[in-house]
Amino acid sequence: MDAVSVIRTKRDKGRLTDAQIDWVIDAYTRGEVADEQMSALAMAILLNGMDRAETARWTAAMIASGERMDFSALAAPTADKHSTGGVGDKITLPLAPLVAACGAAVPQLSGRGLGHTGGTLDKLESVPGWRASLSNAEMMAVLREAGAVICAAGDGLAPADKKLYALRDVTGTVEAIPLIAASIMSKKIAEGTGSLVLDVKVGSGAFMKNLADARELATTMVGLGADHGVRTTALLTDMSVPLGLTAGNALEVRESVEVLAGGGPADVVELTLALAREMLDAAGLRDADPAKALADGSAMDHWRRMITAQGGDPDAPLPVSREQHVVTAPASGVLTSLDAYAVGVAAWRLGAGRARKEDPVQAAAGIEMHAKPGAEVTAGQPLLTLHTDTPERFGYALEALDGAAEIAPPGTPYEPSPIVLERIAPDA
Amino acid sequence: MDAVSVIRTKRDKGRLTDAQIDWVIDAYTRGEVADEQMSALAMAILLNGMDRAETARWTAAMIASGERMDFSALAAPTADKHSTGGVGDKITLPLAPLVAACGAAVPQLSGRGLGHTGGTLDKLESVPGWRASLSNAEMMAVLREAGAVICAAGDGLAPADKKLYALRDVTGTVEAIPLIAASIMSKKIAEGTGSLVLDVKVGSGAFMKNLADARELATTMVGLGADHGVRTTALLTDMSVPLGLTAGNALEVRESVEVLAGGGPADVVELTLALAREMLDAAGLRDADPAKALADGSAMDHWRRMITAQGGDPDAPLPVSREQHVVTAPASGVLTSLDAYAVGVAAWRLGAGRARKEDPVQAAAGIEMHAKPGAEVTAGQPLLTLHTDTPERFGYALEALDGAAEIAPPGTPYEPSPIVLERIAPDA
Repeated sequence: MDAVSVIRTKRDKGRLTDAQIDWVIDAYTRGEVADEQMSALAMAILLNGMDRAETARWTAAMIASGERMDFSALAAPTADKHSTGGVGDKITLPLAPLVAACGAAVPQLSGRGLGHTGGTLDKLESVPGWRASLSNAEMMAVLREAGAVICAAGDGLAPADKKLYALRDVTGTVEAIPLIAASIMSKKIAEGTGSLVLDVKVGSGAFMKNLADARELATTMVGLGADHGVRTTALLTDMSVPLGLTAGNALEVRESVEVLAGGGPADVVELTLALAREMLDAAGLRDADPAKALADGSAMDHWRRMITAQGGDPDAPLPVSREQHVVTAPASGVLTSLDAYAVGVAAWRLGAGRARKEDPVQAAAGIEMHAKPGAEVTAGQPLLTLHTDTPERFGYALEALDGAAEIAPPGTPYEPSPIVLERIAPDA
Repeated sequence: MDAVSVIRTKRDKGRLTDAQIDWVIDAYTRGEVADEQMSALAMAILLNGMDRAETARWTAAMIASGERMDFSALAAPTADKHSTGGVGDKITLPLAPLVAACGAAVPQLSGRGLGHTGGTLDKLESVPGWRASLSNAEMMAVLREAGAVICAAGDGLAPADKKLYALRDVTGTVEAIPLIAASIMSKKIAEGTGSLVLDVKVGSGAFMKNLADARELATTMVGLGADHGVRTTALLTDMSVPLGLTAGNALEVRESVEVLAGGGPADVVELTLALAREMLDAAGLRDADPAKALADGSAMDHWRRMITAQGGDPDAPLPVSREQHVVTAPASGVLTSLDAYAVGVAAWRLGAGRARKEDPVQAAAGIEMHAKPGAEVTAGQPLLTLHTDTPERFGYALEALDGAAEIAPPGTPYEPSPIVLERIAPDA
């Protein structure tokens, strides 16, 4: 077996055999297959594809490259969620304690933001004292204490994926659906959850810009989950407009706490409940009532226990930005669009995100939205408040927002897009 | 400018701009663009192509990565030849002194063998004392003394190509026609020759297995030559059968000397003369008579001067292999095929070639052929003699030869393929 023959097989539109896939993933993890060979293979896969069986084997090989966690010792069924990433997507924050409050155990391994989409760990780190890195034993202790844990994946989980993900990022080979699906699912399956709900975002602020690509990615991942005995369903959800009224780390934590307190923006509440119901169904807890758990304070109680168990202070004030800049409506009328990608890029430029993995983020940077599409606005009223600790960034952020908000004449009818566009369940 | 945006342009089937090409070649040469980024780009180029203008710019950027030689101080016009590589292709050895004897200066930068095709420098190194590495000053001195020089390209010539060639070799990205054309032509143009004849091989023993690919490669290279003011023509020549009656380093030197002495196999003589006429035409020496220069000993005289000027002894006995193994005809009849690829692989396995760049070669290893297609053979007569210093390799070499020779019933008509299949000249 050698790397060139594997690369040539895919380059020439052939199917990779199980033995080729097992060998190339293992040899890459060990450093025997070089980065320049793997990136050529990744490009060939991006351009020539992999079928379902190849993708399943690729995923299995990445799982086999590291350890597998096991939560079978817990009394509660495990449920997890993965989002493909969007702007203002703070859903994991209220969702994990909410589902825990309904009786499931939620071992939520999360990531950091890169580019214009935020990262769950970055958001939670704006809570004073909160720690993202836990040992396996600490993770299990938090799970027993709070029913939910949100933390960084350890180095032992799917190391092949870690290495390949970093490589794809610098070689223009991120946008390959089989590789995206294998990357997500290898981590989630190795994590050992019993059930999984995928939130596959579609629209300008998402990785998948159109419904067809999102459907293909979701179908591939749902199939991979079924292959590995993880009950997996997917919701395709709208990401043409930011979720909620905030994009940025501390700003989104504040909004998440509002939801847990029984308030918060309607779209965030709607999507949180839709995903909670999917997770509880998949975990076999069909009688649970997540709306009640939001209303009666039990979700908030689990949030406070979870934050506290990870060293955070749920009562400490969240960081506030040193500088703000208000963008006002240039005309009166109906706000018909507020582009998610533009808002995401602007929040990123204000300091909420990072350009490179090793960059720090600003806890308080980001954007508050004072109106969402469908709202009547008046010329001069505040539309957005930009937050940053580094005001020299305002100009650069405002450039990204140019044309992001569209205002139509007063009275123009506006048809809101549903949040949940489609549901993808296993074939069987 | 960044590597990922360049890769994405080609990945998404776009045209690379001049600025993108100039930047990526320069940054790769400097090490700013990493190997794993360049290999992903090479795979995208292999699968999505480059048009003539992109290929021309790519070639120019590779030339600009290093020094350019200049032979304008010589009184004689310069002429050079490049072969895309075949089995038994020793043509450079008699051709360079022959063309020098006819009045052109022949600065022939050559390479070493890799895989089943031999390398001119490996062949000449079987001449005791002969040196492949010359300084620019030494190269010019040999050229003045003998009219021809065959030596290794210095490190200063198209360094981007050296780096990229080694990378393509290990990443399954060799077989991209624009990259092959740019690699060959950047070296030849940087070398500073005034005219160039390309011998583009077609057939099982060649890189290009079919006429359409060979034609595309030749047309691309002839165009690149014209773009850079180098008079360039190409002959497409047959490589379904080995050239001549030997494949291997010292064996091919011996056969080349036979040609220079006015003898040698008909196909080697025919191709040597055809290429000599092309080179002399391109150099503006239309009245020269290469057949006469072979017959009257003047070509041999230039060979002896060239070998001597590079430290070699033209009268020293050539190395002879320690062990031989004779393959006999299994039946009587007409030899209808002798597969070039099989003979090339067998010679390589006997020790004539190398698996990796840093491996040594055996000077005396290789294969002698006692019959070529079209010959009547008798069961039990010698067909091939295998030579090696390491007899444990016979079995592995014989495996490669399994089925290589086909014998049809006596009297079966045999239509020989012409050596020169097509000629490609510039449009104008």
